[in-house]
Amino acid sequence: MNGSESLIKTLVDGGVEVCFTNPGTSEMHFVAALDEVDGMRCVLGLFEGVLSGAADGYARMTGKPAATLLHVGPGLANAAANIHNAKKANVPMINIVGDHATYHLAYDAPLTSDVEGIARPFSHWVHTSNSSSEIGVDANNAIQAAGHHNIATLILPADVSWSDNPQGAAAVMPISALTQVKPDKIAEAVNMLNSEKNNMILVGGVITEALGLQLSKLGEACGVRICVETFPTRIRRGAGSGVLEKLPYLAEMAIDFMKDVENLVLIGAKSPVSFFAYPNVPSEIQAKNCEVLTLAQTGDDLLHCVEQLLNQVAGATVSANCHPHQVPELPSGALNAMSASQSIANLLPDNAIVIDEGATSSFMTYPLTANSAPHDWLTLTGGSIGFGLPCAVGAAIACPDRKVIALEGDGSAMYTIQALWTMARENLDITVIIYNNQKYHILALEFARTGARGGKPGPKAANMLDIGSPDLDFVAMAQGMGVKATRATTAEEFNEQFAAAMSTHGPHLIDAMVPPLQL
Amino acid sequence: MNGSESLIKTLVDGGVEVCFTNPGTSEMHFVAALDEVDGMRCVLGLFEGVLSGAADGYARMTGKPAATLLHVGPGLANAAANIHNAKKANVPMINIVGDHATYHLAYDAPLTSDVEGIARPFSHWVHTSNSSSEIGVDANNAIQAAGHHNIATLILPADVSWSDNPQGAAAVMPISALTQVKPDKIAEAVNMLNSEKNNMILVGGVITEALGLQLSKLGEACGVRICVETFPTRIRRGAGSGVLEKLPYLAEMAIDFMKDVENLVLIGAKSPVSFFAYPNVPSEIQAKNCEVLTLAQTGDDLLHCVEQLLNQVAGATVSANCHPHQVPELPSGALNAMSASQSIANLLPDNAIVIDEGATSSFMTYPLTANSAPHDWLTLTGGSIGFGLPCAVGAAIACPDRKVIALEGDGSAMYTIQALWTMARENLDITVIIYNNQKYHILALEFARTGARGGKPGPKAANMLDIGSPDLDFVAMAQGMGVKATRATTAEEFNEQFAAAMSTHGPHLIDAMVPPLQL
Repeated sequence: MNGSESLIKTLVDGGVEVCFTNPGTSEMHFVAALDEVDGMRCVLGLFEGVLSGAADGYARMTGKPAATLLHVGPGLANAAANIHNAKKANVPMINIVGDHATYHLAYDAPLTSDVEGIARPFSHWVHTSNSSSEIGVDANNAIQAAGHHNIATLILPADVSWSDNPQGAAAVMPISALTQVKPDKIAEAVNMLNSEKNNMILVGGVITEALGLQLSKLGEACGVRICVETFPTRIRRGAGSGVLEKLPYLAEMAIDFMKDVENLVLIGAKSPVSFFAYPNVPSEIQAKNCEVLTLAQTGDDLLHCVEQLLNQVAGATVSANCHPHQVPELPSGALNAMSASQSIANLLPDNAIVIDEGATSSFMTYPLTANSAPHDWLTLTGGSIGFGLPCAVGAAIACPDRKVIALEGDGSAMYTIQALWTMARENLDITVIIYNNQKYHILALEFARTGARGGKPGPKAANMLDIGSPDLDFVAMAQGMGVKATRATTAEEFNEQFAAAMSTHGPHLIDAMVPPLQL
Repeated sequence: MNGSESLIKTLVDGGVEVCFTNPGTSEMHFVAALDEVDGMRCVLGLFEGVLSGAADGYARMTGKPAATLLHVGPGLANAAANIHNAKKANVPMINIVGDHATYHLAYDAPLTSDVEGIARPFSHWVHTSNSSSEIGVDANNAIQAAGHHNIATLILPADVSWSDNPQGAAAVMPISALTQVKPDKIAEAVNMLNSEKNNMILVGGVITEALGLQLSKLGEACGVRICVETFPTRIRRGAGSGVLEKLPYLAEMAIDFMKDVENLVLIGAKSPVSFFAYPNVPSEIQAKNCEVLTLAQTGDDLLHCVEQLLNQVAGATVSANCHPHQVPELPSGALNAMSASQSIANLLPDNAIVIDEGATSSFMTYPLTANSAPHDWLTLTGGSIGFGLPCAVGAAIACPDRKVIALEGDGSAMYTIQALWTMARENLDITVIIYNNQKYHILALEFARTGARGGKPGPKAANMLDIGSPDLDFVAMAQGMGVKATRATTAEEFNEQFAAAMSTHGPHLIDAMVPPLQL
């Protein structure tokens, strides 16, 4: 067994069963080892940002890490933007980064770079394996380091990969369990929630159906507002899910939304802050006099924590306030962000997974789908654009029996458009909606909010916000990568195309020609 | 004048006249300032790797830096792979990276990252501007740091960008001149070259027409072999250029090529090393007993150095050995890497710029164009794939009166395929040749060379080297981004399409269906 074979065997033994790959020369022995060791599914991407975004989507849906296989420093750098999103989503990921043979680094060949230095800003754990006899143990350490919530980056020099490893695979230790919140902290929160003050619970991370229902009961029981962070990792929504508020994206609105809150209890969420800074807008969202209690953080058992709270304030008798199944009518006439969202809300199949990178165009899709068929919703946790299509790849591989729907802005889709090819190659059950408004329209909004040039772009600035010259034809691009695609210019066309996509398996793209949202 | 206005004014005063941009919210005041300060041309890209590759191509052709405008840490990371190539090409570049307002960083908003940490592995100089009153001076320092050969990354917090700067633009100092090689070093080299031993000069970096001719004279004068590094930044070639050898890519061939060399004189090149490590192949290319003299390095005046050498060994009377203008006939019949290369060699227009990221398919294009019309040839200096299309954008903006030809593998084109849109938007005079062989064919070669699994990929490995399922249709993708495109399946079709592209202005893509090169 060589280094790579023991690496892959250890990963597989540790439950890492999918590897998103874009290999180069230094990874050839790893690639060869895939045929020697059973149990690792390999999914090829044409650009590394696809791989890390897919590993993120996979982890969001399974709770466990996928591996990525990246080629030296630049390959890692290409993956970094979506690793950033995964890091902010608090999901596990194991990046295997091939590098030159240990003895070759001193010669400063063209692809030599500081791989550890590149990895560090995006990783919780970085390690370069020093020998083929250690790589198995290193792989187990990477699995431990990734745990439930962390980014682990293991650098694999080519000679470590190809040299013999008489030790073979390493023993894999169990991942440490989630932490239980201490009773005194629960008591402190109960005190807060029982006070006569204006209380709010802010919840974040992965909000499962059970967690949402218990939170809703808690809200019913003690009149506390239950609010979800603006960009949760994953949230169960739709018919039968608990009714929860959502913190608005715009700081101005979020500040107003929270202005009366006197006690804020954080469960899996951080203290809310403005996404960006704006002149004369505070960074903190809650009011200055608001008291904040961090009850449970990433790594804590959120569900058990909420159940404890619920037991202490209400017992088991209270009922959750659940969303009914009640969808808007199918729209007719003009296609725009609103009518497309109505159509999606109406036609959303049971147990779909929705990935939201629609920027301004999907602002309305979220509220309109509140009472649609039950589904999971995944958001852009780290703000790094180019997340949606890759995340859909990973979610579809994690959940092959569920329909995945990616809501994309035209601008955001272009960062990692190569993901379409992997969708076709793996015949993934993904429907991509491109909200094609021919603008970086969110930037027009942001330009106004920052007050730059009195909020009015001059001609050069306006040109930087406009991506309609030339028009992006997503039907042509999708077909160029083997994905069936159609264009919708009316609500009727959209209804028909979306319904067709929902009733057939495999990748489908709808290029939805929508005007920019009126701001 | 605010911070961004003084930044842009200082850059323009320092000769930085082009900015490749992909802005986000934190850069809105920079974008606004473009309409307040004259002289900066802004070119929008849909993905940051396009910007840095374009800045590289621009610098290779002009010798001076372009700026990039990048959005926070992930935007910088997306640009990093092509910054790596530029760094290895020793060209100047100034990256302006927007970040959160200084006071906002403490709140760890979603897009917060360690921007300096991300920049450092890819930059010679990194600085975060602390206040709007310092940004002008910081911009001058960035210009000085970039100089002729370096990557300077200046981080621009949003509040530094938007705050008033009563100082206005800073004074720009002249860039320090190239260094002259010391006479005693020249004398040492003359001694070596006059010896009876087997001598070679290895030259690298930017090889201008004048430098190539003087080198050729030197070779004629003292019988020394003159050899160009495998991946020079830029080299003048074709009719009228000096005849120079070229170091092969494959280490096995390169070692054989240099096995008799006893004295190696380096001029703008580094000691040659294998691109990757392979089991049982040495990292160093030259023989163990070869004596190496580093005569001139990056930052030295290479032309003056060679002229000095020439004066001392031969006087001014010797003639260069120049390439004649003598091209292969137009091919007919099957289209393959050889016939496509013959066609290009025949039809290459005067003074074209060729960007080579064709991998195995362009192996033959280089030798076949040796006696074509005079042209410049740019190579993948850093080995980071996704360089070619962006580099073509930058070269075309630098040299609007010259035809730019990008030779691309199908695999390599996909890393930064978004560059096609910028070609269309700016109506750049670029012809893209996709050598579409439906494989990562260089990896099939590399798999064999590494000896992995006896050089024979198993089914899973073979699947990782195959990108023909589904087929990539570059005609559709190019049309989807507004670029005129055609497909060639025979030599005759290729001749006709390439001739048409050469005789009309604007972007054009030829999807050249070629079988994988027989290895």
